[in-house]
Amino acid sequence: MSKIFKQVPLYRFLDLCNNSAVEKSVLDCGAGGAQPPLSLFASHGYKTRGIEFDVKQAAKANDFGTNNNQQLNVEIGDMRSLKMADASIGFVYSYNSVFHMKKVDVKKSVEEMIRVLKPGGLLFVNFLTTNDFRCGEGPCVGPNEYEQMDDEPVIHSYYDPNEADVYFKDMEFVYKENRVLERIYEGSKIRQGFVDYIVRKL
Amino acid sequence: MSKIFKQVPLYRFLDLCNNSAVEKSVLDCGAGGAQPPLSLFASHGYKTRGIEFDVKQAAKANDFGTNNNQQLNVEIGDMRSLKMADASIGFVYSYNSVFHMKKVDVKKSVEEMIRVLKPGGLLFVNFLTTNDFRCGEGPCVGPNEYEQMDDEPVIHSYYDPNEADVYFKDMEFVYKENRVLERIYEGSKIRQGFVDYIVRKL
Repeated sequence: MSKIFKQVPLYRFLDLCNNSAVEKSVLDCGAGGAQPPLSLFASHGYKTRGIEFDVKQAAKANDFGTNNNQQLNVEIGDMRSLKMADASIGFVYSYNSVFHMKKVDVKKSVEEMIRVLKPGGLLFVNFLTTNDFRCGEGPCVGPNEYEQMDDEPVIHSYYDPNEADVYFKDMEFVYKENRVLERIYEGSKIRQGFVDYIVRKL
Repeated sequence: MSKIFKQVPLYRFLDLCNNSAVEKSVLDCGAGGAQPPLSLFASHGYKTRGIEFDVKQAAKANDFGTNNNQQLNVEIGDMRSLKMADASIGFVYSYNSVFHMKKVDVKKSVEEMIRVLKPGGLLFVNFLTTNDFRCGEGPCVGPNEYEQMDDEPVIHSYYDPNEADVYFKDMEFVYKENRVLERIYEGSKIRQGFVDYIVRKL
């Protein structure tokens, strides 16, 4: 009986990775937190590595690994500038993470993810969409970019459902899903919007 | 290392079921096929039961169970008229299945799923939406209901994203996701539309 991870769209990505011939190594960009999906990949035999901006969140992820007899290798870093060689890792994903920056930085980050990926390797990355209930909230700092208050002030960048297609113009299309979900959060129904991409490096 | 099931949205449903206090018994309506998600529930300790219209598909599901040392209990039946007592099972789901009927029959089936569910139990059911690329294809047999050719002629009913809300008016809302996905099928990019509901019986 295996643990269920809340980052549900990554199950599809993992299944595609499992059916790929590329080396089983994976990088998570934005890898921190108390339930790190790198653990799911580790349990499927992947050599894992993670990049995380926040020291506490990185520690939580590594602790989760330790408690499950896994070495997840979550390091402090900046996904806009990965300290990794070109074409050095089989799979890369970034789940609910890359949009915590202005779009100019999102673009840099996606370019970095693509740079470090081996040819034939798969990339999963998702974005907030303009369908999200918080799009428009807070001081606007760019095109659908807002400074919003979570535990501390953070940037959220929102994309039209096709706006990020251009980031992947040199990649092979595998899967795209535009999702509008409603759920109960702190007693109220909220609406969130995400678009998920899975692409292959040529 | 556990198998990944292709019915990805059911991972979220299973996680919610695992966090519920209701008895761990589950019914799958449309349970047949070579990769039955009932196996995932069985591996998490659920007593399973399935209803399937097609004899061959039911056998495939039970064979998968046998090969994995599980007794999945997929039986031939009609989800419009479940041979089960009221409030007799903890959880019910129907994944990519109920829309293979006219809407009058879909309604009957959902009412049956709700009838057999225990109070506090959770239901997952999803529908094709009018965003799907096949909506409008083939002879129209009702409001967004079409007779289409798969391996044999089948009915597909398509729903506006909020159209099925009324089926769940007496249930507690838990989760709803309106998904438009693009993927490669037989060499071409296709667009599919689904809306998934998770609701709780009061």
